[in-house]
Amino acid sequence: MNVSVIGLGLIGGSLGLALRESSIDVVVSGWDRDPTVITTALECGAIDRPAFTLHEAVREADLVVVATPVMVVQAIFAQIAPDLKCGAIVSDVSSTKAQVAAWARALLPPHVSFIGGHPMAGSERHGVVNARADLFRSAVYCLTPDDHTAPEALALLESLVASIGARPLCLSADDHDAYVAAVSHLPFLLSTALAQITTQDPRWAEMSALAATGYRDLTRLASGDPVMHRDICLTNADAIQRWLRHMAGFLDTLADRLDDAQDLHALFDSAKQGRDAWFHERQQAAEQERSLGELRAPDPALNL
Amino acid sequence: MNVSVIGLGLIGGSLGLALRESSIDVVVSGWDRDPTVITTALECGAIDRPAFTLHEAVREADLVVVATPVMVVQAIFAQIAPDLKCGAIVSDVSSTKAQVAAWARALLPPHVSFIGGHPMAGSERHGVVNARADLFRSAVYCLTPDDHTAPEALALLESLVASIGARPLCLSADDHDAYVAAVSHLPFLLSTALAQITTQDPRWAEMSALAATGYRDLTRLASGDPVMHRDICLTNADAIQRWLRHMAGFLDTLADRLDDAQDLHALFDSAKQGRDAWFHERQQAAEQERSLGELRAPDPALNL
Repeated sequence: MNVSVIGLGLIGGSLGLALRESSIDVVVSGWDRDPTVITTALECGAIDRPAFTLHEAVREADLVVVATPVMVVQAIFAQIAPDLKCGAIVSDVSSTKAQVAAWARALLPPHVSFIGGHPMAGSERHGVVNARADLFRSAVYCLTPDDHTAPEALALLESLVASIGARPLCLSADDHDAYVAAVSHLPFLLSTALAQITTQDPRWAEMSALAATGYRDLTRLASGDPVMHRDICLTNADAIQRWLRHMAGFLDTLADRLDDAQDLHALFDSAKQGRDAWFHERQQAAEQERSLGELRAPDPALNL
Repeated sequence: MNVSVIGLGLIGGSLGLALRESSIDVVVSGWDRDPTVITTALECGAIDRPAFTLHEAVREADLVVVATPVMVVQAIFAQIAPDLKCGAIVSDVSSTKAQVAAWARALLPPHVSFIGGHPMAGSERHGVVNARADLFRSAVYCLTPDDHTAPEALALLESLVASIGARPLCLSADDHDAYVAAVSHLPFLLSTALAQITTQDPRWAEMSALAATGYRDLTRLASGDPVMHRDICLTNADAIQRWLRHMAGFLDTLADRLDDAQDLHALFDSAKQGRDAWFHERQQAAEQERSLGELRAPDPALNL
């Protein structure tokens, strides 16, 4: 099967590496707007075949994965639309899904299936040189089919996702965007707001000496890529806005409760229980995944 | 010199261990409301002498460090006041300082020096069994003298703090509380608010599958001790309230700006720069501290 990866950054490159190392028989073509990146991707083993035009990249592809920044996806869809094969599947890896689905509906021809994708994996390192075949291992990989998605196309994409070690999770684009607004975009904005209001405070020079590991962890996401996060906000504004207002209201109410010992204790206890339960479940799933991985691929050192 | 540690938890126990391993000639007595903890502290080497009453603990002490939860400090001050030696120094390790200083002014006799203390070190592990002599190494250790503090008392306390590898930092109790409200208490409350509003959402079961490392890090502090954080809020309510209102206002304004690409980019860029600069400075300080540590204590493996 011919897979074409458009945009050879960390995610696109890792996807190429992972598919080529999987048990599925694939030929991976790759295109990037920067030709030197295409050469590097070839050298890293992220792709089998370089494509120096978008036309060349997609015309034989059974699956096209657009792995560019989200604000470029619309333009890429417009450019590849005339060259897509009949029956081809098109997907993407953007952090928001409803906007991308709208662009796909408007721009892609009816003889292809678009299914949005979002691998919940990443790294603070960028570019194809940091690509890793195991980047998606055990990660949730969201797929956002709609009522018109052909079941065979979805089944094929799910099996590809499973073949690279990720866990496919199907949900609607709107649900996806609502959920990531809460568990991913809101955390980034809180981290950014905290970093901003503290470091911009006139007393920051004195204050910063007292900032320790709690501050470090809470502000870690603020060190992320400003462009990527800007684009996330622009393409998921409604859902993010609802969570920001909810949070602002919650903090205002909390500010009025700081003398109520019982109320504070109940809140801190409830939040701790909720967080501990999630963390425990996550640890258990990772543990289970590790044992399964060991069953699938016995350690060669054990001489089995 | 006789040091008495009142309350043998993680901090009290680690302080005993660190002082006993330091170059200063000390005898450490220890008291805890739980007698079995006193025995354990003796077995761990956290104290030299068990004290089974507060009277016994403090009557010969040159320095008394109250290392109990903050809400117990007031009662401890009242109980030890009649037994304190003339010229003794009293300190504490609470996370908030103005309230403790007020209790000291009201309850301790004029012939002792009270200097508040707050080591910026900790662990998610509790109790004397998790005490470590190196817990304070390289950590900032706040001391909050006031206009009436005897310079000799402060100098002695500073040298003790330095002897356990920590970095003494003198500031007023009010400044301390204002700063930690921003860099420690606000981060905890944001973490808690995030954990609470997400895990209490009716869609949490579906949403939680998409929560990844960003969510994990931003909610880590919410797993902290509810009682300790309740007491922090009760004793630092004013400063925390100001920061909560500031943050709530900031998030509300941000919610109105989610369609302004330029504005968002400028904010994310500014927050990233502020956070990166802080983090870089911190890494450099740690690096420098490590080299100094190596100079002070050459690696025996090097046969120097």
